[in-house]
Amino acid sequence: MTAQQQFFIGIDGGGTKCKARLEDANGTLLVEAIAGPANAARDLDGTLHSIYMACDMLLSQVADLNISYAQIHAGIGLAGVNLPHVKEELLARKHPFASQVISTDLHIACLGAHSGEDGAIIITGTGSSGASIVNNKCIEIGGHGFVVGDKGSGAWLGKMAVTHSLEALDGIITPCILSQSVLDVLQCKTAYDLVTMSINAKPAFFAQLAPLVLNLATDKQPAAITLVSDGANYISQLARCLMQQASSRISIIGGISSLLIPWLAPDVRAILSDAKLPPEAGAILLAKTNLTQ
Amino acid sequence: MTAQQQFFIGIDGGGTKCKARLEDANGTLLVEAIAGPANAARDLDGTLHSIYMACDMLLSQVADLNISYAQIHAGIGLAGVNLPHVKEELLARKHPFASQVISTDLHIACLGAHSGEDGAIIITGTGSSGASIVNNKCIEIGGHGFVVGDKGSGAWLGKMAVTHSLEALDGIITPCILSQSVLDVLQCKTAYDLVTMSINAKPAFFAQLAPLVLNLATDKQPAAITLVSDGANYISQLARCLMQQASSRISIIGGISSLLIPWLAPDVRAILSDAKLPPEAGAILLAKTNLTQ
Repeated sequence: MTAQQQFFIGIDGGGTKCKARLEDANGTLLVEAIAGPANAARDLDGTLHSIYMACDMLLSQVADLNISYAQIHAGIGLAGVNLPHVKEELLARKHPFASQVISTDLHIACLGAHSGEDGAIIITGTGSSGASIVNNKCIEIGGHGFVVGDKGSGAWLGKMAVTHSLEALDGIITPCILSQSVLDVLQCKTAYDLVTMSINAKPAFFAQLAPLVLNLATDKQPAAITLVSDGANYISQLARCLMQQASSRISIIGGISSLLIPWLAPDVRAILSDAKLPPEAGAILLAKTNLTQ
Repeated sequence: MTAQQQFFIGIDGGGTKCKARLEDANGTLLVEAIAGPANAARDLDGTLHSIYMACDMLLSQVADLNISYAQIHAGIGLAGVNLPHVKEELLARKHPFASQVISTDLHIACLGAHSGEDGAIIITGTGSSGASIVNNKCIEIGGHGFVVGDKGSGAWLGKMAVTHSLEALDGIITPCILSQSVLDVLQCKTAYDLVTMSINAKPAFFAQLAPLVLNLATDKQPAAITLVSDGANYISQLARCLMQQASSRISIIGGISSLLIPWLAPDVRAILSDAKLPPEAGAILLAKTNLTQ
């Protein structure tokens, strides 16, 4: 092994975890690691801590190769980097890598899904958003947070289920399996319990309810079908918007994607492709493109 | 004037202001005053400060009567007192009045609207909620905050209008007069501008957009009609729920009530009655009832 040998690290940082992979210059996967949250808009220092924690975990797993940071080219995709001031602050920090390129989690997911070729992607997990890459230009739409955006996401479905349950407790609508299931899961008996628990809750609190809503919809529970259909209609429209940007392929990934896909419109389901590579591999493609530019 | 002379103060405390009125023992209105916010759940010390500020303003306006706090019986209705721990903490504080009784802003509004008789009330302002009084028992429904509740309120209408505008900026829906008007009023050009402004905004930020949405609905703008109809359907259902509790009269008050009433269902509009007295007069009725119990 020589000091000239080069390695690539790909980072996929999101609100709940930071996934990382190490490849050699031939594109051979050496090891993978997962560290803590990496939402750069919410916690910049914590995000950097998670990134270097993940990198240290990778390097310690291949300690015999004695790789230094100066041999590593990093591709980093992070939630929150779509906000210009967040990206500027990240770029202003000192980084120990031989080179690094920083973009959004959506961008690297889209690069991975289509192996670096043009295409589009929708992520439906705790949040929802979409991106397309056409002629190396990445356009991102959706997102915006679960209070005014993120429709069709896990947090949105959970929030709507809480609203539904409060209306049932108030007598505005008739109680049903969905409203009762939400109360059971959260161990709430009154509207006061449910409001106290949810009034300042983060997206992840609401997203924990999403599988319940999706499974009840699959079981043909009417109130769950109404919520899931409404969210799925939005995601279908998001997909059509992305495909209008001359995208050749579209993939849907994220925590609730497999449960949501059956509810998408037939014209959208017909054009879905499986993602070719995971987001962290897309981050390595970004690092390689950056080197050759 | 003797030390035995008694006076009554009624307080209506909400998220934006605290209204107060002073009456003599015969029920003659002497003076009124308005002080700052009094949402007891959000800021207990600030709420007490607003209450005593309002009382001092009342007494200074009738300084020649030389009224002391020990001559005053206070009826106090406050937002946030529906939360048990907030009410307990308020009752635990020392108060300088001859007597005081503390309840919710909804309760005193309902007492005022029906001059202390049984009846129901809906408040549609920044938030939305309803209450009925039957056999001196007050039942409150709705509310719960604009993220998971408060449907049909000013904050809810504004939040939905922001969501609509973000979808227009993203190309998910076709831009229209509503989406453009929201962007114009808030002086936003991009989704980034609008999200930055609204992501952590308080209910009052969203509620400022409600008159715009309601006026566009009156002007037959389709997207505004959709939002206003959805909110009005909820308020109609809230009214029907309250009337099922054997209420004889129902009134709707609050900042957006006059613009919203034309959108309520005909069966609901047919049973609406004007409020007889304002909430702060209802608070005085509460103080008097408390004295005679």
